[in-house]
Amino acid sequence: MNNNTHSVILVLGGARSGKSTYAESLVEEQGRGVYIATAEIFDDEMENRVSLHKERRGEQWTTIEEPLDLPGAIERNAGPDHMLLVDCLTLWLSNLMAAEKNIDEETEFLAETLLQAKGPVVLVSNEVGLGIVPDNKLARKFRDHTGRLNQRIANVATKVVFVAAGLPMIMKDTKDK
Amino acid sequence: MNNNTHSVILVLGGARSGKSTYAESLVEEQGRGVYIATAEIFDDEMENRVSLHKERRGEQWTTIEEPLDLPGAIERNAGPDHMLLVDCLTLWLSNLMAAEKNIDEETEFLAETLLQAKGPVVLVSNEVGLGIVPDNKLARKFRDHTGRLNQRIANVATKVVFVAAGLPMIMKDTKDK
Amino acid sequence: MNNNTHSVILVLGGARSGKSTYAESLVEEQGRGVYIATAEIFDDEMENRVSLHKERRGEQWTTIEEPLDLPGAIERNAGPDHMLLVDCLTLWLSNLMAAEKNIDEETEFLAETLLQAKGPVVLVSNEVGLGIVPDNKLARKFRDHTGRLNQRIANVATKVVFVAAGLPMIMKDTKDK
Repeated sequence: MNNNTHSVILVLGGARSGKSTYAESLVEEQGRGVYIATAEIFDDEMENRVSLHKERRGEQWTTIEEPLDLPGAIERNAGPDHMLLVDCLTLWLSNLMAAEKNIDEETEFLAETLLQAKGPVVLVSNEVGLGIVPDNKLARKFRDHTGRLNQRIANVATKVVFVAAGLPMIMKDTKDK
Repeated sequence: MNNNTHSVILVLGGARSGKSTYAESLVEEQGRGVYIATAEIFDDEMENRVSLHKERRGEQWTTIEEPLDLPGAIERNAGPDHMLLVDCLTLWLSNLMAAEKNIDEETEFLAETLLQAKGPVVLVSNEVGLGIVPDNKLARKFRDHTGRLNQRIANVATKVVFVAAGLPMIMKDTKDK
Repeated sequence: MNNNTHSVILVLGGARSGKSTYAESLVEEQGRGVYIATAEIFDDEMENRVSLHKERRGEQWTTIEEPLDLPGAIERNAGPDHMLLVDCLTLWLSNLMAAEKNIDEETEFLAETLLQAKGPVVLVSNEVGLGIVPDNKLARKFRDHTGRLNQRIANVATKVVFVAAGLPMIMKDTKDK
């Protein structure tokens, strides 16, 4: 499974941890990137980020919006001559929950898609389980789903990086073995 | 203090981080385990977990429920031919607070019990202090107690592992010294 | 920039993670320290901590309270024969927000001050972005500012340490390069 072209990198971190910037830098040092945004409604910061991408991308970046069918978008867009950047899994999960999808099935489908992807994929996700148990039932459910999704994707990833204060900690790297 | 038989492993992590599964794997690779559950009321996931244990345990696992007198349960059940798995300290703390016990005393008593334990012990605990300060006063108190408990137990542990997305990061290992 | 005397250490951690105690130990192993407290109102634990400092400091520690003009306090008090300990950036940020200051400007001003500081500085800060998105709008804003501040200070720091359960993980150390 892990030949030279198979590469799935999970970038985990908290809010404003620098995880997206770090993930983008991984793509940019490789060359051409395709950005898959899972956000349906862009807030100002996201709009700025996308504008910044567009400004500096030249031929480097293409942007796709895909709130729900992330596995499909990965399957259609992965390829050996560019990197996919998915930002982020947490928003995708939030969209799935709003659309009342079966989260366990979607999680498994994403994992299998990543194992079969025809090119390198970098995925950004939030770690949300390190605070106090939320009062809100939906928030607890979301937290549980996020934790399970992160575990499953970390399991199929060739590399997992935890980012805090903009600094990466390598948690898994199959090249080390 | 740290002879070959003295082993206290603290497994820290967030909600749905894979910390319990990781802790169980530590026990299972050693052989026989005694599971000390601190939960009084089992939710569905816990019931499933216990059922799974019972199914696969054969001669491997014994399960004990001890919501309050965790030091006593460790003292009575630790032994050189099996591992104790305590899951988890966060629930124990929550039970102690509900029963209006003196948390500092209980924390110290647990630490001393671990230093004297007659066999290896693995303890699972939540890290809960990495979110925004909770509005709720009781939640803040709980967060403070958890932080102090984790520090104290990490201090007497021979090994401390932080688990995120199912992946372990070794934070302390007295064998390294 | 990074000559032998330039030293900026950022100590990150959650609530009751042992980050302040760790930061103090860094100062105490070097000798004389100047403690810059950013708290305006001291809670009991802070008062105890300050009392403990005063008790054990002898000639070792001087304490300064500076809720808002932290860059000025660093500029005035840094020097080659002692270490500055700033505890903590999170409270400073909270004070700046209450005083309706421009946070981005203040963040940048602090970063530049640290780059020019005439002696070693240790700064303590909270990681607050690893829980569920807070309901409260102000809390979300605070979380965003904290994340950006931690990234910026980590960027100018010569060393960054993440503390959990009293145990340090080195995330950056320019001496390694």
